[in-house]
Amino acid sequence: MAKKVLIVGGVAGGASAAARLRRLDENIEIIMFERDGYISYANCGLPYYIGDAIKEREKLLVQTPQAMKDRFQIDVRIHSEVIAVDTAKRCVTVQSKERGIYEESFDDLILSPGAKALRPGIPGIDSSHIYTLRNVPDTDKIKRVVEEKKPSSAIVIGGGFVGVEMAENLKEKGTRTAIVEAAPHILAPFDEDMVISAERELVQNGIRLFLNDGITGFSDTEHCVKVQLKSGRVLEAELVILAMGVRPDTEFLRNSGIELGERGHIKVNERLQTNIEGIYAVGDAIEGVDYVTGSKTAVALAGPANKQGRIAADNIAGIPSVFEGFLGTSIIKVFDLTVARTGANERTLKAAGINYKSVHLYPMSHASYYPGAFNISLKLLFDMEGKILGAQATGYEGVDKRIDVISTVMTLKGTTEDLTKLDLSYAPPFSSAKDPVNMAGYAAENVRKGLSHVTTWEKVYDETEEYQFLDVRNAEEYDLGHMDGSVNIPVNELRGRLDELDRNKKIILYCQVGLRGYIADRILTQKGYEVQNVSGGYLSAKDFLY
Amino acid sequence: MAKKVLIVGGVAGGASAAARLRRLDENIEIIMFERDGYISYANCGLPYYIGDAIKEREKLLVQTPQAMKDRFQIDVRIHSEVIAVDTAKRCVTVQSKERGIYEESFDDLILSPGAKALRPGIPGIDSSHIYTLRNVPDTDKIKRVVEEKKPSSAIVIGGGFVGVEMAENLKEKGTRTAIVEAAPHILAPFDEDMVISAERELVQNGIRLFLNDGITGFSDTEHCVKVQLKSGRVLEAELVILAMGVRPDTEFLRNSGIELGERGHIKVNERLQTNIEGIYAVGDAIEGVDYVTGSKTAVALAGPANKQGRIAADNIAGIPSVFEGFLGTSIIKVFDLTVARTGANERTLKAAGINYKSVHLYPMSHASYYPGAFNISLKLLFDMEGKILGAQATGYEGVDKRIDVISTVMTLKGTTEDLTKLDLSYAPPFSSAKDPVNMAGYAAENVRKGLSHVTTWEKVYDETEEYQFLDVRNAEEYDLGHMDGSVNIPVNELRGRLDELDRNKKIILYCQVGLRGYIADRILTQKGYEVQNVSGGYLSAKDFLY
Ligand SMILES: Cc1cc2nc3c(=O)[nH]c(=O)nc-3n(C[C@H](O)[C@H](O)[C@H](O)COP(=O)(O)OP(=O)(O)OC[C@H]3O[C@@H](n4cnc5c(N)ncnc54)[C@H](O)[C@@H]3O)c2cc1C
Ligand SMILES: Cc1cc2nc3c(=O)[nH]c(=O)nc-3n(C[C@H](O)[C@H](O)[C@H](O)COP(=O)(O)OP(=O)(O)OC[C@H]3O[C@@H](n4cnc5c(N)ncnc54)[C@H](O)[C@@H]3O)c2cc1C
Ligand SMILES: CC(C)(COP(=O)(O)OP(=O)(O)OC[C@H]1O[C@@H](n2cnc3c(N)ncnc32)[C@H](O)[C@@H]1OP(=O)(O)O)[C@@H](O)C(=O)NCCC(=O)NCCS
Ligand SMILES: CC(C)(COP(=O)(O)OP(=O)(O)OC[C@H]1O[C@@H](n2cnc3c(N)ncnc32)[C@H](O)[C@@H]1OP(=O)(O)O)[C@@H](O)C(=O)NCCC(=O)NCCS
Repeated sequence: MAKKVLIVGGVAGGASAAARLRRLDENIEIIMFERDGYISYANCGLPYYIGDAIKEREKLLVQTPQAMKDRFQIDVRIHSEVIAVDTAKRCVTVQSKERGIYEESFDDLILSPGAKALRPGIPGIDSSHIYTLRNVPDTDKIKRVVEEKKPSSAIVIGGGFVGVEMAENLKEKGTRTAIVEAAPHILAPFDEDMVISAERELVQNGIRLFLNDGITGFSDTEHCVKVQLKSGRVLEAELVILAMGVRPDTEFLRNSGIELGERGHIKVNERLQTNIEGIYAVGDAIEGVDYVTGSKTAVALAGPANKQGRIAADNIAGIPSVFEGFLGTSIIKVFDLTVARTGANERTLKAAGINYKSVHLYPMSHASYYPGAFNISLKLLFDMEGKILGAQATGYEGVDKRIDVISTVMTLKGTTEDLTKLDLSYAPPFSSAKDPVNMAGYAAENVRKGLSHVTTWEKVYDETEEYQFLDVRNAEEYDLGHMDGSVNIPVNELRGRLDELDRNKKIILYCQVGLRGYIADRILTQKGYEVQNVSGGYLSAKDFLY
Repeated sequence: MAKKVLIVGGVAGGASAAARLRRLDENIEIIMFERDGYISYANCGLPYYIGDAIKEREKLLVQTPQAMKDRFQIDVRIHSEVIAVDTAKRCVTVQSKERGIYEESFDDLILSPGAKALRPGIPGIDSSHIYTLRNVPDTDKIKRVVEEKKPSSAIVIGGGFVGVEMAENLKEKGTRTAIVEAAPHILAPFDEDMVISAERELVQNGIRLFLNDGITGFSDTEHCVKVQLKSGRVLEAELVILAMGVRPDTEFLRNSGIELGERGHIKVNERLQTNIEGIYAVGDAIEGVDYVTGSKTAVALAGPANKQGRIAADNIAGIPSVFEGFLGTSIIKVFDLTVARTGANERTLKAAGINYKSVHLYPMSHASYYPGAFNISLKLLFDMEGKILGAQATGYEGVDKRIDVISTVMTLKGTTEDLTKLDLSYAPPFSSAKDPVNMAGYAAENVRKGLSHVTTWEKVYDETEEYQFLDVRNAEEYDLGHMDGSVNIPVNELRGRLDELDRNKKIILYCQVGLRGYIADRILTQKGYEVQNVSGGYLSAKDFLY
């Protein structure tokens, strides 16, 4: 008799698993349960539909139950919530709008219930002006408010990916928008020095930012809601979007015997099997291994969810397939700016006790002499064995490409030396003969080989030893602004002015982006001076000090 | 005493070597000889300066002799041609504009003389209307003609990268432009099915293409030059650009004892050493190993030249460093279209006797529901062990990114399976949850695992066995145009209409791009039919048949 596979959740992970499973096996009976009325929708497009970048609502619906039936013979049951899993009896209990409560047995089960928006128990949280965004019904509600009430003001609580996208899209609709973020900075996966350009981009586009400030309560006024902040500040807006993060939607598994992690994530092995034979889990609801640090982590992103759905299907159909861990590559458009990352950030590395080095570069997105080139701010984290630990980048062009290339090297366990060897496509409109990624590799290899001695503004601030502070840019640049206490000897004059330096005192030097500083480092080191060059130079000080 | 290193050629390879060498060693005496009056210029920008995309001439000059002296203490000698190398005496003979002929001794020597434009001995080739483009003086000459004479017509001989770029840039200046190409198609590194979209883009932008037609002679008329073609056709234009390819500029080495290859390329090992101790060679002038096929090859591109210059410098300074071979990643903008590749093409693979498979996909450049997405035409070549042999792509967005990612996997000797595992950055403006590169990996892995059975239009044309020809698109698509002889059963109806198919005859089927064809393949194969699905579908037939 044909196998019977049940799937809980009909979107990224669930629908991907269903489609793949059918392609692999015409005979399996596949039933997919979805609590809501929609399957296979583009979660990631929801903010852009609200902001009108996406004009047609149907475009959000990648597949319908009927289409999944027609093409893949999937029995899609919408408005059907799985409320319990009986791992002994090997059946699930379904609460169906149409059919009431019933049981359905399975041979194999794939769990892809995703996550739900956090809604902390803050006074006033139930105000009718407060919305969360996860699925199509949520979107319809917010869209209706935005189109019908045309709110003149909105507050987004939480500066994560969804919060920032919502703020931008509300602004695009003409709504005066603010973001409130409890942490010192938005977009937690990024380090402070990298995220500041995103904050600047938001502010320059008219989004007000309230950082380092939590919410303590809400209270309704006639047309608005008042938002009380920890700092005592009170904001008011017609619309509030709660975007404080997500938690796995796994309450229905509490007593099932399926092992959950501390925060409710489903535990799986590399093959995405739970502790119960024949039960698989994928997507936002699972926890897995951090590809870089090896520790437990959870990453709520569509790429992994889709891929994991396919992997679970493969394993069920007898094709051994593994998910090796989360690299956490992610990206966001912030108005004209792109902000992207892969792997670990400094915070994660510090927490994991991993020693790392960093280089910070500002290479051009394509040949500087060809029109339309912009600086990319690129930070690479690596260790002295050459292992790449993470990368973050911001800029107006070509950011996605560089992060994808670095992520690819990391996935293949390549090294900083490998970065120097990559043969990336070059013509003036696309890159430089030495691509920014090659350049990051060079800079990192120079650190590893002891050819270059880098420090960061953060470390300079904590410096206790006495040092000479040297600015190696040219006089015009120095006059336009320099770090307090620095003396100016342009790199080209350095060889002739060595006598102005104290041979017995460490030199901390900087240029505009780090390149001339590196050359100065080379000159001085070979003359016997002890040198530290600030990676990212004066430009990164701007981000550090902002 | 300090080492003395001479460098021949002061641009991509030479200047890169010089700068790196100085950074590595303050004491080495470095002399760089350049035949022309300019060093370190942006060869790759020259066509765009002629076409006015680059407005300022100075932008082409990345470094000047004075700047190289000031920053790097390089003794740059322009208008100084090295006319001989005496490997026994370890000195070069220099013909200097200023100093006449003299000798200069060396400990180490780096050769980066580059290549020169081919100028075959065709009757009339010395016409004053005929130009080649390699360096700044060439550019100045063409620029003067274009600005002063404002030629109304131009002919570019040769449809390689430089030829196509020149044609586009002359057209941008308002010149009626034609390309004459002796081969059946332009841009030889691409396979026919991939290059056709570039040819279409040129034609649609008003460039006339004369393919499969060589030149037999030129003859001057009053203001023009007549171009006689093999076919008998005669074209006429005020300006002719010869862009027939390059050959290594190595005549001065003929009797030096430095080993040259058949076509005059300098032979080097992995460390870029020639057969003579202490003599290195880099850039367009060398031959090396094809990273994919292992055979000898020469690749005249700036990325390798710059990287090799740095590698040679490292080796001289005592840092062991190798160049592992040419992957040949390259890219060109053709008006709005991007055309890029990496690794081997079908022609190279056939020539090398390497068995390969190919998949052809048309994924969207980013999420289809987010505005501004375009199909990328992506072809992946691989073998049944999963080794990636090459990739080619064309499209209006995100082509460079996908080729760079695939090139990265190839450099790291990753497999088609690795393509499926890449965690690439996804948000709707940038990609899809399964990036086109993941998708290419899936399609290839399905072929390798025997899950999908692909063929190409080329093979269908040569098919001798009797077969059933099936179009699995929907009726509207079929009615708009289909392959002659095909019957239409939409994929969604297939399961219910199996009785219309002959169980004993092979089925060749296609859809629009290959995806539905693959699903049909899965359905039919599992029902016991023998199936072949045309990779790239009806869309690729358009390119094949054009
Ligand atoms: C606004 C927004 C923007 C986003 N943008 C991006 C982006 O740009 N890039 C990116 O990578 N990711 C993005 N994401 C995240 C991405 O959408 C998720 O990572 C992905 O959808 C997770 O897939 P999943 O299958 O685990 O869960 P989901 O796609 O959420 O699907 C889970 C489904 O299961 C259903 N369900 C839950 N419990 C049950 C039950 N007990 N019974 C039946 N059905 C149940 C739910 O109703 C839901 O429809 C975004 C998410 C949101 C909300
Ligand atoms: C118009 C044009 C567009 C291009 N576009 C691209 C592109 O988009 N992408 C890409 O990757 N590549 C491109 N290239 C190719 C790229 O420029 C070359 O691959 C690269 O410059 C090769 O570097 P090289 O150091 O070997 O030679 P070159 O950069 O050519 O330098 C060689 C120098 O050596 C000098 N020389 C030669 N012989 C002697 C001698 N005996 N004594 C003294 N000096 C000597 C020459 O005068 C020359 O200046 C383009 C080339 C051209 C001409
Ligand atoms: C659409 C959805 C149902 C998945 O369906 P799917 O059929 O697996 O995905 P696609 O339509 O992208 O097709 C992928 C398949 O086509 C194959 N394919 C794609 N192009 C092909 C081509 N030209 N030739 C042959 N095969 C091709 C791939 O190999 C893959 O098949 P496989 O998994 O068996 O290897 C699911 O991803 C979904 O619901 N998405 C929307 C929800 C979502 O992801 N939200 C979060 C992001 S917004
Ligand atoms: C410009 C040219 C002289 C090379 O000079 P270069 O100094 O090696 O190259 P760049 O200015 O790009 O600097 C690269 C160096 O800076 C370092 N660097 C770059 N950014 C850095 C940063 N932010 N911090 C520290 N170091 C940095 C790199 O590590 C590299 O040093 P290394 O080689 O010692 O590791 C040479 O490439 C040239 O002549 N180019 C024009 C000609 C040409 O290439 N034509 C063909 C293409 S159009």
